[in-house]
Amino acid sequence: MTYKHKDLLGLRELSKDEILYFLDSAVKFKELNLKSVKKSDALRGKTVINAFFENSTRTRISFETAAKRLGADAINFSASQSSTKKGETLIDTIHNMEAMKTDIFVVRHECSGSAKFIADNSDASIVNAGDGLGEHPTQGLLDLFTIREHKGKLEGLNVAIIGDIEHSRVARSDIFAMKKFGINVKLFGPAMMMPNRADVFECEIAKNMEDAVRDSDAIIMLRVQLERQGLSTPFPSNREYSKFFGLNKKRLELANYPLVMHPGPINRGVELNSDVADGKCSLVLNQVENGVAIRMAVLDILNKNRENL
Amino acid sequence: MTYKHKDLLGLRELSKDEILYFLDSAVKFKELNLKSVKKSDALRGKTVINAFFENSTRTRISFETAAKRLGADAINFSASQSSTKKGETLIDTIHNMEAMKTDIFVVRHECSGSAKFIADNSDASIVNAGDGLGEHPTQGLLDLFTIREHKGKLEGLNVAIIGDIEHSRVARSDIFAMKKFGINVKLFGPAMMMPNRADVFECEIAKNMEDAVRDSDAIIMLRVQLERQGLSTPFPSNREYSKFFGLNKKRLELANYPLVMHPGPINRGVELNSDVADGKCSLVLNQVENGVAIRMAVLDILNKNRENL
Amino acid sequence: MTYKHKDLLGLRELSKDEILYFLDSAVKFKELNLKSVKKSDALRGKTVINAFFENSTRTRISFETAAKRLGADAINFSASQSSTKKGETLIDTIHNMEAMKTDIFVVRHECSGSAKFIADNSDASIVNAGDGLGEHPTQGLLDLFTIREHKGKLEGLNVAIIGDIEHSRVARSDIFAMKKFGINVKLFGPAMMMPNRADVFECEIAKNMEDAVRDSDAIIMLRVQLERQGLSTPFPSNREYSKFFGLNKKRLELANYPLVMHPGPINRGVELNSDVADGKCSLVLNQVENGVAIRMAVLDILNKNRENL
Repeated sequence: MTYKHKDLLGLRELSKDEILYFLDSAVKFKELNLKSVKKSDALRGKTVINAFFENSTRTRISFETAAKRLGADAINFSASQSSTKKGETLIDTIHNMEAMKTDIFVVRHECSGSAKFIADNSDASIVNAGDGLGEHPTQGLLDLFTIREHKGKLEGLNVAIIGDIEHSRVARSDIFAMKKFGINVKLFGPAMMMPNRADVFECEIAKNMEDAVRDSDAIIMLRVQLERQGLSTPFPSNREYSKFFGLNKKRLELANYPLVMHPGPINRGVELNSDVADGKCSLVLNQVENGVAIRMAVLDILNKNRENL
Repeated sequence: MTYKHKDLLGLRELSKDEILYFLDSAVKFKELNLKSVKKSDALRGKTVINAFFENSTRTRISFETAAKRLGADAINFSASQSSTKKGETLIDTIHNMEAMKTDIFVVRHECSGSAKFIADNSDASIVNAGDGLGEHPTQGLLDLFTIREHKGKLEGLNVAIIGDIEHSRVARSDIFAMKKFGINVKLFGPAMMMPNRADVFECEIAKNMEDAVRDSDAIIMLRVQLERQGLSTPFPSNREYSKFFGLNKKRLELANYPLVMHPGPINRGVELNSDVADGKCSLVLNQVENGVAIRMAVLDILNKNRENL
Repeated sequence: MTYKHKDLLGLRELSKDEILYFLDSAVKFKELNLKSVKKSDALRGKTVINAFFENSTRTRISFETAAKRLGADAINFSASQSSTKKGETLIDTIHNMEAMKTDIFVVRHECSGSAKFIADNSDASIVNAGDGLGEHPTQGLLDLFTIREHKGKLEGLNVAIIGDIEHSRVARSDIFAMKKFGINVKLFGPAMMMPNRADVFECEIAKNMEDAVRDSDAIIMLRVQLERQGLSTPFPSNREYSKFFGLNKKRLELANYPLVMHPGPINRGVELNSDVADGKCSLVLNQVENGVAIRMAVLDILNKNRENL
């Protein structure tokens, strides 16, 4: 099996085999990144533009590192300096950079669906690095990669995703992918952060934290994204959040020490207590490490698809 | 014929043959950019600093792409982060980066004449990427390259330049270069945007849009640069501008479908209607593509001149 | 003799021989930077992140140039765009980038001791590029390198450091290193800019400028760093500062034309008159040139130490 498309926009439309193809391809890049010389020439002479219409240093650095280790010419574009401010349309901005013979755009944008909109209007390959309340497929892939690496399989596992489900594109990409592998996904979070259309996901909704974490093989804690809620005062308060929705040592014990994951950055003492974040179960940094490998695999695969078009 | 100077500051001082040398040299770089591996080592081990004292993402990315495809170490400097804010003089800033053995500076600055001022005070090669109301020579070169590519020649053509002539360094570079080739340049725009010293350019001034576009081989539409006018309310209004100075399908037909060009970014519905911008006559994206090739040629030629000093 | 440590945090803890090892190693990189092709592959396949939690364009460009000339993948991180704003802890931010298999972090941070704090919590190599009122070791090394280059030795020289001693990490690194070589260091500056703990440095305090500069082999003028004083009106005023603490031609003559150095950026007419800054004694630009060589040596040595761990 392989992956034949020009773009990677989300995991919802992917088959199980296509997802596995990305995971399997990332293994060799993870190995490369452990070597003394972390360098390939798979993308030599290719131009990769990180087109970040919404800021995200961590994701940008992960993709920039991936592109450079593959030998690409990596160029950063951030909207705060850009001509979108001068009234240029999004597609005009993309078409301009595409006319410079850009091979791959890594796109982050605050509008849901923007990555697909760009992909439909560009001959370049588009990697969605987060589009509004849409998807964040490389995060979903690296989460699956990390779970598989530690559990040896994906099928039939129990995964809890806890926090701001409604505003999390990470949750969406995770859920779409996990359902394909028959992973039993349980959701939990404050009422106003739970999806209205929870039925869309066909996931079980937990009653409380204890119910959410029980019998889970992995717990994915989400970050409270205050900047997306538009509230000046966080509600629930940080203390309330920690009490009712946070992961601490007691709940970890109750859950029988599952894998603990978080897309970062962590709000210590809010959704994740420090003893858990730094504890033996935490895979937070493994996720970051695997993220570079996954992104190298994605860039490499899309580049090969372009070569064969 | 060749080009023997350390810097490229403007097209006004160049001979016809020197301009042709740049255009001819860009042909091979355009071909390189269409290859699967877009990479040369012409500037390997050279340091190119994009010194942008005025922001311009599009021009910076074009030059950065050009430098990287030539194998240079490309480094971005933007004044908003710089020590010019700490009271350092412009020349001290340049001398500092020059002392790091920088080979070429690509300079954008809000002051007219700044590029020449820097060139006179630096041993590095200077490419003017736009200096106040001065010149923008690589844009002039790419415009000539694009016209020649589509018309097969430059001599004796009729070109209309329409819009904010007074505040456009693109117009200045275009006009200086076109006159050398005997191109008949007609200018048109709102009264307050026309040069007081139109006689300097020795160009015909059109009476209205119909008069301006008639019999033209190419029309170069300029962007209304509100940020340079210092007005809070645009005058003319966007609707008035479009009516009296914009290019639409009817006027394109009247002009018998000439080449349509624009340095970007486009204000759709203001100076350029979308059906024209996206129509068959539009070369806007060809200009962008050719821009990278021209900039590669410029960097390559100046670098060779440095080697032979 | 060699240097065996993972990090370079300051010069205070280094032995004379370790400092000499850095100086001697920089010689070959200075030569490389004078060649037509300024490129080595010593750090090929290595990832160097310039983690600048405090802005400094000049230092960032010097390190970025050094890393790229060594063939490293150089990535810029600046706190103004970063997730530290989202409430992430400093160590979490570093651990994240470290998990991407970053080899070396070049760290600038407004807090004294931050570089050591990071080094203690990271497996990556840390180069301190300035930590609050702590140290700036590569500046100290390049100052020694520059003095040795022009005097042929370090032992027994007389050096005056003049200006804002208290708030200068440059002064601290210089003093720590110079004392090891038996350099006789004399300090002078406005009372409120002199260290309370001058005795810590075991340096002579001059009574006035004439006393300070007399018989000196080198004078290091410091920049008045108004941004660190937190004053809206500079005190002393620029005119007063120049009169009582500035270096002008008369004082240079009195000092019998010693080497004149300054870490930059210069406030012309304040601490340094232009005829001195641009005069024959001035080594300001030599310092900048040597800075790249020193930084290449530091990156190269720390990288080799990592390889041998």
